[in-house]
Amino acid sequence: MPANRQILLVSRPEGWVTEANFKLSAAAIPKPGDGQFLVRNHWLSLDPYMRGRMDAKKSYARYVELGEVMTGGTVGEVVESRHPRFARGDLVTGAFGWQEYAVSDGAGVRKVERSKAPPSYALGVLGMPGVTAWMGLLDIAQPQPGETVAVSAASGAVGSVVGQLAKLKGCRAVGIAGGKAKCDYVVGELGFDACVDYKAGRLRDDLQTAAPKGIDVHFENVGGEVLDAVLPLMNPASRITICGLVSQYNATEPYGVRNLRSVLVNRIRMQGFIVSDRMELWPRALEELGRWVGEGRIKYRETVAQGLENAPRAFIGMLRGENLGKQLVKLV
Amino acid sequence: MPANRQILLVSRPEGWVTEANFKLSAAAIPKPGDGQFLVRNHWLSLDPYMRGRMDAKKSYARYVELGEVMTGGTVGEVVESRHPRFARGDLVTGAFGWQEYAVSDGAGVRKVERSKAPPSYALGVLGMPGVTAWMGLLDIAQPQPGETVAVSAASGAVGSVVGQLAKLKGCRAVGIAGGKAKCDYVVGELGFDACVDYKAGRLRDDLQTAAPKGIDVHFENVGGEVLDAVLPLMNPASRITICGLVSQYNATEPYGVRNLRSVLVNRIRMQGFIVSDRMELWPRALEELGRWVGEGRIKYRETVAQGLENAPRAFIGMLRGENLGKQLVKLV
Repeated sequence: MPANRQILLVSRPEGWVTEANFKLSAAAIPKPGDGQFLVRNHWLSLDPYMRGRMDAKKSYARYVELGEVMTGGTVGEVVESRHPRFARGDLVTGAFGWQEYAVSDGAGVRKVERSKAPPSYALGVLGMPGVTAWMGLLDIAQPQPGETVAVSAASGAVGSVVGQLAKLKGCRAVGIAGGKAKCDYVVGELGFDACVDYKAGRLRDDLQTAAPKGIDVHFENVGGEVLDAVLPLMNPASRITICGLVSQYNATEPYGVRNLRSVLVNRIRMQGFIVSDRMELWPRALEELGRWVGEGRIKYRETVAQGLENAPRAFIGMLRGENLGKQLVKLV
Repeated sequence: MPANRQILLVSRPEGWVTEANFKLSAAAIPKPGDGQFLVRNHWLSLDPYMRGRMDAKKSYARYVELGEVMTGGTVGEVVESRHPRFARGDLVTGAFGWQEYAVSDGAGVRKVERSKAPPSYALGVLGMPGVTAWMGLLDIAQPQPGETVAVSAASGAVGSVVGQLAKLKGCRAVGIAGGKAKCDYVVGELGFDACVDYKAGRLRDDLQTAAPKGIDVHFENVGGEVLDAVLPLMNPASRITICGLVSQYNATEPYGVRNLRSVLVNRIRMQGFIVSDRMELWPRALEELGRWVGEGRIKYRETVAQGLENAPRAFIGMLRGENLGKQLVKLV
């Protein structure tokens, strides 16, 4: 009898996540009831926000209980349906978790068109990470032509789109990434104007060289020392979008940011945001991103791990910055 | 021959300001040329921003050169005029510096009406500090009825107005101040709902008690540990106005703020501002503040030092939080 393999959260990390926090398990494949359908997951998305769900602390979303299947977005195929709007063979994306099968009533589920782009893109540039980049940059920070836009984790699923959107809007795009290979990719393939390797140990000086006219918009995915290096370079009336603080997610002691004086002196607007707060913006964001990807104006890469059993290792690797572009797990 | 006594900046502080950074000096009383007038200063305003002007570092305004008269706002009387719009006997307020006389061409000078309120109010509630409170709270943070507004340095020239404006807008006003006497004043006389004494050593717990429904707007005058204590109590979609960071102005090592995660989790909008950026808002702010002061709906206190020679000591005292309400120096 085929089983539904799942990854459960079995212990909470103290500091860095380890593979021992997870357990591969198997359950019976669930049966859809009336108004439900069964999805077979093809692709699992791995994203930094999942680290937050592993801690039992108050946040914007419910955390995962011990023994529960890990939270996560997937793309899959409807294999059995008793739902009026979803048919067998439909490709769908939703929060179906780190598992091979899931039953859904369709809430929060989006259909994926096979013709437009590879289905896995619905977990990246044409999904949550892409909309995150679009919303945080274009709706919140609103860069103007000629301005300088900096983005940390620039080679990642969100950061890579942020810089390319900045270029589309006529801005200078400056990436911050870990290592020469990522920086080469960010400049050579994605078309950023410059990329600073924070591992080279001269972050502030190199940023100053890369942004000679200062920074007008900073899109923050990392926090900590990166934010401290960026703050003194912010221009008057500049904006900082706080999208993520991945440097802090595994820290036992949070880093103390010393350069907030710049927020006052330069009248910076700093805004935290969560992409699910503004669902009304998703259709327009997806339409624009789809067009730009189709026209080749936004480039996109994926790093793919094979098999559900390798999801924990790939997740830890992503938090360490070992991936290039969007980190996925191929399940089928 | 009468002289123009002045306070010069003669050395830059390393850490805390000392009286030795200043020197009392005397110059000839200047003569106004064509299109100019001579002011005799009656009141000198002492404000936290002046600490920034003592350091030779890039900020939003030019710093004071060594040997120069200290920057400062005053209220004075025109004693000689060759200017078409200013007549002998006019009361005026402007950036006339820490000195007894000044010549001006009228740029940035506002006339003060004798009838409406004591002239010194033009340096406080009906001047820069009052407009700062009005702009940072009503224009930037925009508190809604029923929301909780917190403000640090709550007994000071700006903070005392912030909390009273919050009450006028139907909010719960929570002050943060140093010592029981100040807290008693803030609650008993100014009508805040609660005040937390940060010197009592239980800032976070006491704030939680004072703001049982969390904080929707925080007006920051202090920074450092105060900001770190406030951040975790901020509600979703809350706003932080960064008006000042007085705890940091004399620090040799800036404090590292550890709780910025709350900006992300709670989608906080943090905005630094400088009151002189939006001169177009001053007339409306002054009109409203004048009306509320006239109606007794905004209460106001001053701490007055006597004589220009005591300005440095009074300034240091203000930075240490020894004043209640607006710190002034009476010159005449």
